[in-house]
Amino acid sequence: MVNPGGRTVQLLDCTLRDGGYYTNWDFDERLVEQYFQTMNSLPIDYIEIGYRSKPKQSYKGGYYYLPKYLLDKCRNRTSKKLAIIINEKEVLVEEIVELLKPCIGIIEMVRLAVAPENLERAIRCAEVVKEQGFLISLNLMYASKWEEKLYVSESFKYLNGVLDYFYVVDSYGGMTPNEVTNIFNKLKEKLSVDLGFHGHNNIEMALINSLAAIDAGAVLVDATVCGMGRGAGNLKTELLLSILHRKYEVPVDFDILNELVESFLDLKERYKWGTNLPYMLSGAFSLPQNTVLGRVKKRFFSLNSIVRGVSSTSSPTVGDFDFPVFSPVKNFAKVMVVGGGSTPQEFAGAIKEYLKENSEICVIHSSSRNLKIFLNLPNHQFHCLSGKEIHRLEKKLHSGDRSKRIFLISPQAGETIQDGFSSKFEGLFEVLEKGFFQEKYDLSTTAMAMDIASCLNVQEVMFIGYDGYTGRVSPEQMELFEENQEIFNEAKRKGLMVFSLTPSMYKISSKSIFSLL
Amino acid sequence: MVNPGGRTVQLLDCTLRDGGYYTNWDFDERLVEQYFQTMNSLPIDYIEIGYRSKPKQSYKGGYYYLPKYLLDKCRNRTSKKLAIIINEKEVLVEEIVELLKPCIGIIEMVRLAVAPENLERAIRCAEVVKEQGFLISLNLMYASKWEEKLYVSESFKYLNGVLDYFYVVDSYGGMTPNEVTNIFNKLKEKLSVDLGFHGHNNIEMALINSLAAIDAGAVLVDATVCGMGRGAGNLKTELLLSILHRKYEVPVDFDILNELVESFLDLKERYKWGTNLPYMLSGAFSLPQNTVLGRVKKRFFSLNSIVRGVSSTSSPTVGDFDFPVFSPVKNFAKVMVVGGGSTPQEFAGAIKEYLKENSEICVIHSSSRNLKIFLNLPNHQFHCLSGKEIHRLEKKLHSGDRSKRIFLISPQAGETIQDGFSSKFEGLFEVLEKGFFQEKYDLSTTAMAMDIASCLNVQEVMFIGYDGYTGRVSPEQMELFEENQEIFNEAKRKGLMVFSLTPSMYKISSKSIFSLL
Repeated sequence: MVNPGGRTVQLLDCTLRDGGYYTNWDFDERLVEQYFQTMNSLPIDYIEIGYRSKPKQSYKGGYYYLPKYLLDKCRNRTSKKLAIIINEKEVLVEEIVELLKPCIGIIEMVRLAVAPENLERAIRCAEVVKEQGFLISLNLMYASKWEEKLYVSESFKYLNGVLDYFYVVDSYGGMTPNEVTNIFNKLKEKLSVDLGFHGHNNIEMALINSLAAIDAGAVLVDATVCGMGRGAGNLKTELLLSILHRKYEVPVDFDILNELVESFLDLKERYKWGTNLPYMLSGAFSLPQNTVLGRVKKRFFSLNSIVRGVSSTSSPTVGDFDFPVFSPVKNFAKVMVVGGGSTPQEFAGAIKEYLKENSEICVIHSSSRNLKIFLNLPNHQFHCLSGKEIHRLEKKLHSGDRSKRIFLISPQAGETIQDGFSSKFEGLFEVLEKGFFQEKYDLSTTAMAMDIASCLNVQEVMFIGYDGYTGRVSPEQMELFEENQEIFNEAKRKGLMVFSLTPSMYKISSKSIFSLL
Repeated sequence: MVNPGGRTVQLLDCTLRDGGYYTNWDFDERLVEQYFQTMNSLPIDYIEIGYRSKPKQSYKGGYYYLPKYLLDKCRNRTSKKLAIIINEKEVLVEEIVELLKPCIGIIEMVRLAVAPENLERAIRCAEVVKEQGFLISLNLMYASKWEEKLYVSESFKYLNGVLDYFYVVDSYGGMTPNEVTNIFNKLKEKLSVDLGFHGHNNIEMALINSLAAIDAGAVLVDATVCGMGRGAGNLKTELLLSILHRKYEVPVDFDILNELVESFLDLKERYKWGTNLPYMLSGAFSLPQNTVLGRVKKRFFSLNSIVRGVSSTSSPTVGDFDFPVFSPVKNFAKVMVVGGGSTPQEFAGAIKEYLKENSEICVIHSSSRNLKIFLNLPNHQFHCLSGKEIHRLEKKLHSGDRSKRIFLISPQAGETIQDGFSSKFEGLFEVLEKGFFQEKYDLSTTAMAMDIASCLNVQEVMFIGYDGYTGRVSPEQMELFEENQEIFNEAKRKGLMVFSLTPSMYKISSKSIFSLL
């Protein structure tokens, strides 16, 4: 708690809640113990300990569900006020009472994370929360994209009668202090409830924005230890307290705080939260962090194409290109789909031999990584181009390698491809319309390959270079792995014969390439 | 280069110069090549490639000296304007011409890093630089501590006639955008030369401060890749460009930039620059980063004592304490000085046996780490208290362990020690005046131990637990190691017999503890 100019501003630490995005809401109990002991000695008013959620299909840890015993445990560890948060879009209003029952007498404040388009629905939830005896905060997300109509909407008027706190959430972490001040000034005209601010740190403005929010009237601001939180993370508790100590002389035990910070730095070594260039761009252009990082790390899009995509009003379609739409002149019974794994290098000799002897098999490259093995072969070859693939291709293909080659562009990724476009292969580019697989697995080059196979009336698909991932697997690689597995399953369900010709961790039938020679 | 409102603002990247603080100005030439290629494709106007310096006693790499061949190499790698910096306090005005000779025709701008108290002297240097045909920038450091008298000083008037650029350097990295704006407004009243801003990121305000500087009239701002730079580091080039791209539509190839960022992130893994709680506090309270980190990591001061020290007007002296000044009642011929290494644990039995049999030997603890070995012994024991040592002691000593024990406080560290002060050992505290060793090695507990030994008229000093450091040695540990070695050397020069009784990496005579039993 700080008292700038006689006002009381309270501080909320939401490390367990927001940090859970990295640990899947599991925390070592010794760390939790140290966390609470430290919070108890700091001028923090609220501790937000996690979510209350309905059961999910995938695993999430304790601080995502907060069962009764864990609520009790937290309560016993501190006399500070406790808060939890509920994802509004994941619960129905009639489920709220049941969900909050274990929290009664333990939790002081319930916060609802709400998207602007659900504001009306959320107000009914808020009323129910309030009736259960909790303080209620409505945390309205995506502040950088709020439009003028929000402030004059019917729903907005009702907030005064229901809420204890209305929170401005800079979800993209790209706001500037002036923008924050403007929003608070507008809110103060319309709302009489207390205001809060939750900042993200994509462009390193979480602190200055929170200070601007306090100056503009916020009476509750959020922070997390070491900024631990989704993507680029949050305002750092230690930074906020350092500055509030300087500015308002709020007492802080920096040694106890530093010991906690050191413990969380160990976690940071492992999970590596914090900002980076993709997150900065997601902040600067109000793009969802997951989308940006997914496109860069999973779909291999270029950052330039992502930034350029911001200014275009709608996604490009096949008609936006000067290239013809792909329509095959020939069918193939068998196709070899080549992924980016390393095993094709090991079996290069056998693969070449097999393709030479079976020139009626066509090759579809979902990645360019193994391209060199497939030069100077009699087979038709198709290249799935998305993301940065064209730049890789350019380095590996000579203008002489034109024969029987077609480059297929995904419309969504076309903006990238025109970029490094070379005239070397003029006439060989065609645009691939979305088929069954791409509709389901947008922007996946394996889905592109399967849509191409469908167009070619293929009956048999031989995968090579779909090895799976070993060692330190990134979340994006894990997602790719699961997605490819689903694509294989779908292909089987559609009656295609699918198998792997190189060693693979996927659940897929396999044959040895040597058995075919 | 960006053009906000018709003005031209230029950008300067000083990664090699400021990043050199971490690499000792050695950089892998492939990285340098990638760096230049990337800079060539970005809207960066100046590249500051390092220092020009006179020869130093200790090793510094190429980008600290910039010999002619390296200047040429840089020149051949880019057509951007090149800058170098000179530490004004390290050169005499009459040395400037010689120092800059190799730069003529290669370097566009020479910057002088100047402390406010040397402004007058620096103007003469600036004139000489200018006469050699360079653009001259005067980078005035410690902006957060500038006083009003600076702006009205005689020297200040002369700047207009000499300089091309006057730079505001936020050396402590703790300024806020309002403070930056105020400084620029004051400068604009007094100066007609172009203004620049160099921000540090201790409290994560390097970006917002640089934007505030631009708004307030700066026409040249600095940044480094990944913020690589001394201590908490600088404004990140990738962050600045992301925001300038959004704000002013300056064209940026984010993919090429990101590849460079990834290369520097590898370096960051190794050198771990960036802000942390000690750096935040050094920013918030305008304390030199090295002092704060040195006191925390080398002298084991508490952060609280450092922050508290900010408000006290002068360093405490012996007279500031309620304890008597140390004056020994008894002399000792031999003393055992116990450091914090782990070997005493291995030889605990032998050490105890030796001390029991030789109760006329006194023990001086320069660290409390091995204290438990020395309980219940007949020997006189002295404890050197500095930094957080008192807290460690409290956990290890019972009130029963009073006998023949004296706690010696270093006046400089007294502020810390009063903190966790316990009445358990009332009457046993004395203040140690600075002697020969402490005058040379301020705040070192080994120096304290040697000053105590001098007071006791000791002839022979046996060190135990001075093992040296192995494994991943931090810079602070390396400094401690060198400092202890110097203390041993000094002791020998003063005619003391000094040796180690436990295995040690120091250059010091040794005896086996077992040979003495």
